[in-house]
Formats: sequence, structure tokens, C-alpha cells
Amino acid sequence: MSEGFSFTVSATDAGARAGVIETPRGDIRTPAFMPVGTAGTVKAMLPENVRATGADIVLGNTYHLMLRPTAERVAALGGLHHFMNWPHPILTDSGGFQVMSLSKLRKLTEEGVSFQSHIDGSKHMLTPERSIEIQCLLGADIQMQLDECPAIPIEEEKARTSMLLSVRWAERSKRAFEEKSQPGQALFGIVQGANYEALRRESLEKLMEIDFPGYSIGGLAVGEGREEMFRVLDFTTPHMPAQKPRYLMGVGKPADIVGAVARGVDMFDCVAPTRSGRHGQAWTKAGAINIKNASFADDPEPLDPESPCPASRDYSKAYLHHLFRAGEYLGPMLLTWHNLQYYQELMAGMRAAIATGDFAGFVAEFRAATGETVL
Amino acid sequence: MSEGFSFTVSATDAGARAGVIETPRGDIRTPAFMPVGTAGTVKAMLPENVRATGADIVLGNTYHLMLRPTAERVAALGGLHHFMNWPHPILTDSGGFQVMSLSKLRKLTEEGVSFQSHIDGSKHMLTPERSIEIQCLLGADIQMQLDECPAIPIEEEKARTSMLLSVRWAERSKRAFEEKSQPGQALFGIVQGANYEALRRESLEKLMEIDFPGYSIGGLAVGEGREEMFRVLDFTTPHMPAQKPRYLMGVGKPADIVGAVARGVDMFDCVAPTRSGRHGQAWTKAGAINIKNASFADDPEPLDPESPCPASRDYSKAYLHHLFRAGEYLGPMLLTWHNLQYYQELMAGMRAAIATGDFAGFVAEFRAATGETVL
Repeated sequence: MSEGFSFTVSATDAGARAGVIETPRGDIRTPAFMPVGTAGTVKAMLPENVRATGADIVLGNTYHLMLRPTAERVAALGGLHHFMNWPHPILTDSGGFQVMSLSKLRKLTEEGVSFQSHIDGSKHMLTPERSIEIQCLLGADIQMQLDECPAIPIEEEKARTSMLLSVRWAERSKRAFEEKSQPGQALFGIVQGANYEALRRESLEKLMEIDFPGYSIGGLAVGEGREEMFRVLDFTTPHMPAQKPRYLMGVGKPADIVGAVARGVDMFDCVAPTRSGRHGQAWTKAGAINIKNASFADDPEPLDPESPCPASRDYSKAYLHHLFRAGEYLGPMLLTWHNLQYYQELMAGMRAAIATGDFAGFVAEFRAATGETVL
Repeated sequence: MSEGFSFTVSATDAGARAGVIETPRGDIRTPAFMPVGTAGTVKAMLPENVRATGADIVLGNTYHLMLRPTAERVAALGGLHHFMNWPHPILTDSGGFQVMSLSKLRKLTEEGVSFQSHIDGSKHMLTPERSIEIQCLLGADIQMQLDECPAIPIEEEKARTSMLLSVRWAERSKRAFEEKSQPGQALFGIVQGANYEALRRESLEKLMEIDFPGYSIGGLAVGEGREEMFRVLDFTTPHMPAQKPRYLMGVGKPADIVGAVARGVDMFDCVAPTRSGRHGQAWTKAGAINIKNASFADDPEPLDPESPCPASRDYSKAYLHHLFRAGEYLGPMLLTWHNLQYYQELMAGMRAAIATGDFAGFVAEFRAATGETVL
């Protein structure tokens, strides 16, 4: 494990864990939700307000940043933290997932992925080594190995071939990271294997042999559904090392997160609160609502009168409705802020419940309030 | 003058004045710049950050608000201040100017203006009485009479006919205001007469007979150019009552404002800082720049390292450039904030210079720094 990077589990409650990841840039309280700052900004948010919601860390997307403004430019400007005015921890993905979903004319080989930018058609090659080089140029505190992330369903033989490629890329990523990284930065390996128990176990074992300070669970939340995702977690997380953080990539909606925390996951990221907020969806303690619905046009109540968050507390639903109807910037700004606050309060609530040994009570309350199936 | 509303000139320097308008909702330091909050929001700004720039008052647009969400709905929701979370003074226009520039199938008669909404084609009638009714439903602290605002150039006879209609509407507006308004609210008459000295004098004299607690100068900044606007001010403001605030509507760029303050104007509003900010233009102490220019792609300097405003101080031009190139919300958010800060610092600088009797020095410095012609 890198010096300056550590993880301590301070409480467990059945499968759920609460703890803290220490990094040179600050602590990350777990279970942690990381707002997504794709292109060097959590969309429609001032960074001081992202922080005010209780976020300890944000995520940046290697694919987007390597294309624009480019990793070399960010490095020349003092690194991603300085660039985006976020002095706290940053996690970056490897770029692999978004290359496969966003770029044009991509071609995957043993060496890596060649592709054309979706922005200007320019040609690029992303290898395990180049991904690490980019993440180090950005200065990410927590970095991801390049992996291949196949869709589910996939035949087991194909899933194994893909998983073994990801393992080979994990080894190359680690070697590159050892060359390029700064003290206190950490590289996570990514467990793949689709929804096959044997493959997830094999992937995990091989990654543990390489040895990483944290392990991500990739290849989920790709359309397989909540129940299937939980089934995969059920046969994966129990075998993951207890003393290392576990990061479920790209997850999820509140009920996904609560269920995954119950299964021992420590870290999450998802565009749901920000993207939904920009489109008028707000999470509330009673579930999700669409503020554009006509029923809110005369609603004088704020989204959460008890909240410390101005976005949740200081504006009526009628006003938010008006802002979305009028196409005003402030609508997405306020609903994004509110949703991030909701997510961070959800995480804080789970951390507190785990600490006091009442996670089951938390889940029961969440289920009763939102009507969501969790477990 | 309405009880609870007063204006005190605390210092003069040649033609320029510094003072304070007291209202039940707070003081307005003059010369004052009022950010425009068209549809109940200063676009792309959190209201707490509008306030933090030093804004004492914002402007709301009657035309927009009467159509959506409607004045009756705003009133039912507690008034515009509560609706938009801005507890400080609000000035509203009469709606007349925007009816003529934005609506469809408008028809002007002695009674008022009938028109169709640009949003949904619905039919409306705006009379002096209805305009005041709407402004009172919104709860505006400073309200405007309905007027007609002809373009320049216009023949003198037509300009006089129009000006006399505005005077008759001023009388009707005042009667309606006396019926509907709350203590401490104020109604301003609007001086018209295009660029004809005799008409401006006649308009002003007739309005002063009706007697208002403040006078607006309308019908300028409609394409006549800075020099012509200053010429009109030169023969208008010296005749305006010294003890009443003077509001130059819809003005302007920084150099317009500095020149108008030199001519004795106390209040301004303009979409320039907000609209330009959304389109990538930033005012700086050295003049205006377009942050989208490629020359800023690698510029590590913030817009103003000495500024107390986070938007001006905490982000490099390279980052702002990136945000605009990537189409991120945060670009318009930060540049709007920066521009409003610039405008408020400009006003504060003029107030301080007038108080110390060095307005000429302020103007000379402004001219030297920006290269703008002012006087």
C-alpha cells in the first residue's frame, strides 16, 4: 500500500462497514458517495457547494479530460485539483469504459484500445500505461487500472477471455503506476467476470496476487438489474480483503447504494443525482419526484424544510417548477445541489447507523419512507 | 413620497451624486447597479452570490412574470421576494418595453396594449392600471409607470404624441398605485421624448406636476449610440429634481454607466454583465475579453487575483476557457458572477470617489485602464 494512503474500518454491522480512507489530501469517510465531475466540473455546481453537501471526494473522467483540455495541459496548469478548484481527494477512472461507450471506430487489442475522439475525430491510443500516465498527469489521488467492461449478458467463455485481459492490464497498470505515481496516491484493481461466480472469484484472486491498496467491482450497473447486481455482490464482496476499500463503479440510485452497503461496499459514484437534477428529478425522503409535473406549480413547500442545504430548504417546489418551465439555469443548479445533499445525507445516515449497530433499522426506515426494495 | 421610502444625497462631485435610497426592505447605495432577474432569477446565479457581489437591489420583468408563472401565482406564493429567495429590494419595470419588443400581434391604444404571449400565444391586455396591479401583486419595492418607448430616430411630432400618451399613463399609474400599493413602496414616472430637448423638458415638467418619488429616463439605449445618449442626458438630468433618485433604464456597459453617473444618474440596470457572461465575455480592469479565444487555453492567471469574489479569483482563465469549450454550466455561472462583481466594484469605486471628491480621478483611471471613451 502506498505510504500516506490507508483504510481503517471503524465499525461493522452484519456485512456493512463504516470507516475512513486517509489520503494526503484529506480523509474520505466510508461508505462514500463520489459526485461525478466528468470534464473537471461537477455539472452545474460550484465546488464550494459540492464540498458543503459533505462530499469528501469527487470523480474525474480520464476519457473526457484526455481529449479536452488534455492531461498535459491540466498538468502544466498545476494538476486537476488546482484546475477545478477542488483541493480535496479526486478519483479518476481509467478511461476504458467511456472509450467503449462514447468514442468512434474503437479497436481493442492486447496492447490497448485505439479510437477516435467523439469531439473532433482525432485518433488516440489508450493502453494501461497511457491511462496511468494520464491519471498521474491529472494528479488523481485514487486511480483505476485500464480494464475491459463487457455488457451483461455475455457467454462465460467470452467473459473469461475479457476478464483475463483485464488482469493482464492490471499487472501492466501496476508497473506503470509504480514508475509514475506520487507518494500517497493509490491504484485500484478492478474485479471483472460479468455475472459468473467462478469468474469473479478468479478475477479477484489474480488481482489479490498482484496486490492493490483497494479493489473496484466493475462490469455492473450495465443493465443487468438491481436483483442480479445484488446477486453478483453476494458472491463477490465476502471474498474481498476486509482491510481494503471496495468500490462499486457507476452505482447507483439510492436503493442500489443502500443494498450494496449492506453487502460490504465502501465507495460509489454515479451520475444519477447530477444528471437527474439537470432534468428535473429530485430525490426526497419520500422518494423521487419530477419537479416539472404540473402538480408542483402551486406547491409552496420546499423539498426539505429541515435541510441545512439552501437548495433543499430555501425555495418552494413551485419556484423550482417555474425555473424548469422557464428553462432557467438556476433550476438544474438547485436540483443538482439538492440531490447531492440528499445523497450525502444518505451516506452520512448509513455511516451513523453502522457505527451504532442499527443499519437494519436504517434500511427498514429507508424502505418504509421510499417504498423501495433494497434487500 | 411614500412613507418608508426616502432618498438622501450624501455627496456630490461636479454633476455626480452619491447617496442612499432607504426602503423598508433595506438600503440601496447610489449610484446603484441592479442586476436583471428577468423571470424571477438573475440568470445562472444563486441569490446569495448576487448579494455577495454587493447588489442592494435586483430588477424583475413584469412582462415575463405576468405570463409565467403569473403575478397571481407569485402573490399566492408569498410575493416575488419570497418566491425568488431575495429578501432585499426589488424594482420592476412596467412590462411596456418588453411587450413591444417580445410579444406577438400587439396593438397600442389609449387604453393600453393588447398582445399575445410569445410563450403560448395567449391574449393579454396591459393597461397602466393592470401593470400597477401586477407590480403590486409581485410586491415590488420600486415600480414603474406604463409608458411607450419609441425607437430613435423618430420624427419630433410622433415623439411628442407618444410622450404625451406616456404622461397620461403616468397619471393613471399614479392613481392605481395609490389604491393598490403598500407603505414604503414607490412608483417612478418615466421621462420620454426621444432625443428632443424640448420634449424631454416637457415630459419632465408634466411628470413633476404629477409628482413622483423618483424619475426614470426611458427611451435611451435603443440604438442611438453612446454620444447621443450622453447628449440627451446633458439636457435632461440638470432639470430633474435634485432630491429624487434618477434611474437610467436599460443602461449599460461600464463606460455608459460611468458617463451617466458623471451626468447625475443614480440607478442603472442592464443585462450586459449577465448575458455577456453566459456568452463568454468577461469585463476586467483592463477592458472586456472573450474567454473562448484560443489565447486563453493555457492562461494560468485568474480574471482578478485581488478580487474577494471566488469566481474572479479562484479559477484560471484556462479553466474558464475549458468550461466554455466543453459547454459546461459552470462557465456561464462563473463568468456571470465575475461580471456582476466587476459591475458592483465599479459602482462602489464611483461611490467612494464621489464621497472623497475625486470622481474626475476615477474617470481618468477608468479611461486609462480600459481605453474607453467616457465623457
